[in-house]
Amino acid sequence: MASGKPASGEDSLIARYFRPLATDPGAFRLDDDAAALKPSGDDVVVTTDAIVEGVHFLPDDPPETVARKALRVNLSDLAAKGATPAGFVLALALRSADEAWLEPFATALGEDAALFGCPLVGGDTVSTPGPLMVSVTAFGRVPPGKMVHRSGAKPGERVMVTGTIGDAALGLAILRGGKVHAAASDTAAREMLVGRYRVPQPRVAMAEIVREYASASMDVSDGLAGDLTKLCGVSGVSAVVDLEQVPLSGAAQGLVSRGIVGLETLIASGDDYEILCTIPEDRVQAFEAAVQRAGVALSSIGTIVAGNSVPKFVDKEGKEIALERLSYSHF
Amino acid sequence: MASGKPASGEDSLIARYFRPLATDPGAFRLDDDAAALKPSGDDVVVTTDAIVEGVHFLPDDPPETVARKALRVNLSDLAAKGATPAGFVLALALRSADEAWLEPFATALGEDAALFGCPLVGGDTVSTPGPLMVSVTAFGRVPPGKMVHRSGAKPGERVMVTGTIGDAALGLAILRGGKVHAAASDTAAREMLVGRYRVPQPRVAMAEIVREYASASMDVSDGLAGDLTKLCGVSGVSAVVDLEQVPLSGAAQGLVSRGIVGLETLIASGDDYEILCTIPEDRVQAFEAAVQRAGVALSSIGTIVAGNSVPKFVDKEGKEIALERLSYSHF
Repeated sequence: MASGKPASGEDSLIARYFRPLATDPGAFRLDDDAAALKPSGDDVVVTTDAIVEGVHFLPDDPPETVARKALRVNLSDLAAKGATPAGFVLALALRSADEAWLEPFATALGEDAALFGCPLVGGDTVSTPGPLMVSVTAFGRVPPGKMVHRSGAKPGERVMVTGTIGDAALGLAILRGGKVHAAASDTAAREMLVGRYRVPQPRVAMAEIVREYASASMDVSDGLAGDLTKLCGVSGVSAVVDLEQVPLSGAAQGLVSRGIVGLETLIASGDDYEILCTIPEDRVQAFEAAVQRAGVALSSIGTIVAGNSVPKFVDKEGKEIALERLSYSHF
Repeated sequence: MASGKPASGEDSLIARYFRPLATDPGAFRLDDDAAALKPSGDDVVVTTDAIVEGVHFLPDDPPETVARKALRVNLSDLAAKGATPAGFVLALALRSADEAWLEPFATALGEDAALFGCPLVGGDTVSTPGPLMVSVTAFGRVPPGKMVHRSGAKPGERVMVTGTIGDAALGLAILRGGKVHAAASDTAAREMLVGRYRVPQPRVAMAEIVREYASASMDVSDGLAGDLTKLCGVSGVSAVVDLEQVPLSGAAQGLVSRGIVGLETLIASGDDYEILCTIPEDRVQAFEAAVQRAGVALSSIGTIVAGNSVPKFVDKEGKEIALERLSYSHF
């Protein structure tokens, strides 16, 4: 106590584990009650996503992947809005100050913060008698008025999506056991699918491209079908999606073709963290070229149409497939 | 489903309860994945504080007071940093979408957002199997570089605090039963103390004054003694506090003088949400006049001194009182 430093466990764990991550000068070494974001002339884009043990991650998920997922689900939102990461704050609710958990959590969080250029600027660490919860609020920057919205899709535009859909849902199914677990016997495929559930790949390389080309954009976090429904609803349009064009990984394709899981389940499951956007037809070619240069996989899955009905999902015979559910909902 | 709107319970509860609060144009009616804060030339001050059922509020606290506390603890931080409120995002973890709880929660949150000029701009609602948790990240604005820090206190400066100390701790003690509950027989006094625990009064009127006069400032949330220790630690100074000058409400004074609770307990308990700041001696008079004009009670409780030891707390005989603990810590 002679040093003038408080003896609080909370402060010492912040100093030990989180101060090294607070590399931005506006974080004031986490020595203060607040952070300061300098004015840059840009709009500050703000997104918040919380992940809860037993809901968004499993109790025995490694602390490293919990940390990465908490940050990356927010980076995914920023990318879909066309925003460049600028920093984040962390509210962490813990049952105990377990160093064996906190040390790898903070190390992985710091690695991702550096990787994505999104430093920790502040936070709050509280105790909870319940499940662990990690709440992140992330900040990005876009030129004034240039945030890309869910609204803005117009009839005739192309519906496009990055990466592959459904892998994370299969990864979760593998971790939970059951028929997908039994069927996915290939170790490499299992690891890929579980990895997609635990550690999303936010499409940060897409931010500028989305800003340049997309009329509407969002990240796919609650299921492709439901998220497209939301985008169409806010835009006041509908869509027709060709189910055959929905991009699947080899592992997912194998499970679908063997009848282990239905494509309609995969497009209604969460945790993809891909970017879903709409592109005016005359800009599709340039958009595709830009996305290719960024090294991101891209698929054209459908077309925006007039109307206000739920998007139609049609199979290779052109027959509409009715979906029992569109997406994951917490309630 | 014909409307093109998703049927998700999560979306409908956001639309019903929280959209009416999203009055800022940058909130995009909560229809989007993110909010946008317009550039104003000011620094954006960011603070985050989470409150957990059973830790920061009691399971049977009314939803209205939970809402107000969640926002106000953050507004208290902004005020102490000299920042004017600009907006907030809310991450809400609920066991169920209980309308009888959500409706009064959202109504009270909206009232406070309007009262303090701090609109809801975004959020995330998730399910949890555990205790309810409300995590708020609030934004304020200060002219560039003008955020008031914990560091900056210098020897010879006056230590000042707004309002009264210890009431919230007594309110919590009353709610928990025991000797304070038995001793606090006056109904009005009990209600005042419980009210101070459940609904903090953030000193938003102090923001500009703190910016104008204070060399260092923070809000008192974990206990006056511990928080002053933190301020001194970061400033590289120490302090001497005259315990007789620590401001107590009449109710608290009565309990102390009857020996029900010790003053040393009150200055080491949390939830005061007053502003603790240091003022250069030659500015004290002008500061006091400005605070009086703002209608906020103010006390001068001590002096900053050189050194790096924990602040000394001395009684009316000038004898140092050793504190067993300085503040509340979560771990």
